[in-house]
Amino acid sequence: MSGYLARARRDLLDSGACHFLRAWTMKIASLQSDFYRIPLPVTLTDSRHGEMKGFELVTVRVRDADGAEGVGYTFTPGTGAAGAYALIKSDLTGILIGQDADCIEQLWQKMWWHVHYAGRGGSMSFAISAIDMSLWDLKARRAKTPLWKLLGGHDPKVPCYAGGIDLYFSIDQLLRQTDDNLKKGFRAIKMKVGRKKLSEDVERVRAMRQHLGEDFALMVDANMGWTVDQAIAAARAFAPFNLTWIEEPTIPDDVAGHARIVQQGGAPIAAGENLHSLWEFKQYIASGAVTYPEPDVTNCGGITSFMKIAHLAESFNLPVTSHGAHDVTVHLLAAAPNRAYLEAHGFGLERYISQALRIEEGCAIAPNDPGHGIVFDWNALSALIVK
Amino acid sequence: MSGYLARARRDLLDSGACHFLRAWTMKIASLQSDFYRIPLPVTLTDSRHGEMKGFELVTVRVRDADGAEGVGYTFTPGTGAAGAYALIKSDLTGILIGQDADCIEQLWQKMWWHVHYAGRGGSMSFAISAIDMSLWDLKARRAKTPLWKLLGGHDPKVPCYAGGIDLYFSIDQLLRQTDDNLKKGFRAIKMKVGRKKLSEDVERVRAMRQHLGEDFALMVDANMGWTVDQAIAAARAFAPFNLTWIEEPTIPDDVAGHARIVQQGGAPIAAGENLHSLWEFKQYIASGAVTYPEPDVTNCGGITSFMKIAHLAESFNLPVTSHGAHDVTVHLLAAAPNRAYLEAHGFGLERYISQALRIEEGCAIAPNDPGHGIVFDWNALSALIVK
Repeated sequence: MSGYLARARRDLLDSGACHFLRAWTMKIASLQSDFYRIPLPVTLTDSRHGEMKGFELVTVRVRDADGAEGVGYTFTPGTGAAGAYALIKSDLTGILIGQDADCIEQLWQKMWWHVHYAGRGGSMSFAISAIDMSLWDLKARRAKTPLWKLLGGHDPKVPCYAGGIDLYFSIDQLLRQTDDNLKKGFRAIKMKVGRKKLSEDVERVRAMRQHLGEDFALMVDANMGWTVDQAIAAARAFAPFNLTWIEEPTIPDDVAGHARIVQQGGAPIAAGENLHSLWEFKQYIASGAVTYPEPDVTNCGGITSFMKIAHLAESFNLPVTSHGAHDVTVHLLAAAPNRAYLEAHGFGLERYISQALRIEEGCAIAPNDPGHGIVFDWNALSALIVK
Repeated sequence: MSGYLARARRDLLDSGACHFLRAWTMKIASLQSDFYRIPLPVTLTDSRHGEMKGFELVTVRVRDADGAEGVGYTFTPGTGAAGAYALIKSDLTGILIGQDADCIEQLWQKMWWHVHYAGRGGSMSFAISAIDMSLWDLKARRAKTPLWKLLGGHDPKVPCYAGGIDLYFSIDQLLRQTDDNLKKGFRAIKMKVGRKKLSEDVERVRAMRQHLGEDFALMVDANMGWTVDQAIAAARAFAPFNLTWIEEPTIPDDVAGHARIVQQGGAPIAAGENLHSLWEFKQYIASGAVTYPEPDVTNCGGITSFMKIAHLAESFNLPVTSHGAHDVTVHLLAAAPNRAYLEAHGFGLERYISQALRIEEGCAIAPNDPGHGIVFDWNALSALIVK
């Protein structure tokens, strides 16, 4: 099917079918990309990424012939954004200038195939995500409508959880962080697991469950720290604590292993921050390897891919959750009838965004400003520019 | 299993177990990477990549504390190498300097996990491939042994085919190119298919079969141009011509589709130039989705990954073939008992390498010089440098 569609689209492009539109639609006049390093206030640690001292941010500002602007971004927990930035500058910007900003699917295909041989996931998925996001923001701002309505419009109140990067917090620190999150209005919380001793993970999860009460939504995230059989053992050990999900139990490359964890562990499994295309999600979803697909709009291929992944999950009667970029993602989940929880985690980026995510009674509220509504503090960011 | 091994390796690194070796092994003193654009003498066309006017080349020169050197490279058919080059410069070089050049598996894991979140395939697989190749070359040169013997040593005579990029050649041009290849000593030839009309593909394949005789090894390459059902129809239409394989019938993301083509088309299927990790090959091989796995040492993760993929194929009683970089790959297939054909295709790069691939009676001969034996003409390349 995908091959057929790709070919049909290529034939359409060859035939110039979209050209007649160009006279009265808006061409892309410029695309500016910038690369920043954002220091974290405190060093964070999880079971896989080691110490994270800062995040990398790559922004995209696209402008059309009218001067209207759209903003997109991608980020990393400290390494590798240079690859995405280089692709935007060297390979993608040039093929976008002069194109119709409104034909986003056409531009997505153009970018994907232009760098297919050396692209297809990895840096390219980060690059295309940032650009795609900027194009959707531009489209919504030109239409004077919030993104969540442009994408279909389901419910602006999106259940939301606080994600902590707290693997080596003491239980006291963990509970104190939790009380802070409760005060902020959260009604669902995710904690890290994957210590060397499973008994320590169990003790921490038990403490959290006791602190939060029986029905509070509690998730855990192992950041790929386990083998398949360790994950199954952990899932069984956590059974008394009624977890909403266990996230990233093992490496993202092992689809069959995830399916075995789902079947034998007896707990719902979330995964997706390391899957970088619609097709990787299809592998997981069609194989019964994931219960909560969890795309990240900044690395799954942008808003275009995120919505397809959400719809794919819907077709399999699965919820869709999210990773990263909560400011933009709240719009995407507000347009998806099968949305589960939004992850609220700013990675220190919230200090450079004018409007904080609004949280009321456990729900994030999708804003009604045109576009995604994110306004970066470009002045403050300029001190952190890499190039 | 992979998760467990990854964890064991991390623990080993944490414990400093390799440190005692460092006193008498060779540290990496420098790693130089350069980015070139290589124009092609004639523009090439296939069913997916459109017109290819030149290739991108990223080289790596690693030197140890003794001044010994190893050389590696990766390439693209025109776009996207900027991503790999940026990762080598910004993220990978820094973590390699001072490390033991001989612990290649340890360095491979270090690189893979250092850029995992924004890596995992795409640009990162190209970057790690070039570096890994340089480290194996260095190791073999220090050991004064050709790479094919260092890797195990099976048979230096590797069956070899000429790969043409000839989709829009007339039948006359196609047969003339074929006669040239026969004169050069080739006893197996691959041609492009995937024209808009299947009848034209059939006519061209029939002309080649008639020209070459009944038992000559003939392959075709569709460069992802078909849907799954178009590929099955083509495989059936080609049945009278006894093809050795049909290559890349559809997009690399569709594993289940490939399995259906293998089962229903009735012809052997080759795929792999767009698969960028051991695990992507495992998906294909374990699903019965490929008959001839075809890794490219410049984008599958380097020599370390290529040999694992070859061994994985062997364990499934499958042959292994190759894409690109024939100068290095002849060593890898000369070490693999399940080697099928080496693809001989220099992408214009052969003009910048001192020693041509030796071909005798349809076989490429792995050279006996230390390392891979490739000597780049750095002076000529310097005119083509991007940065």
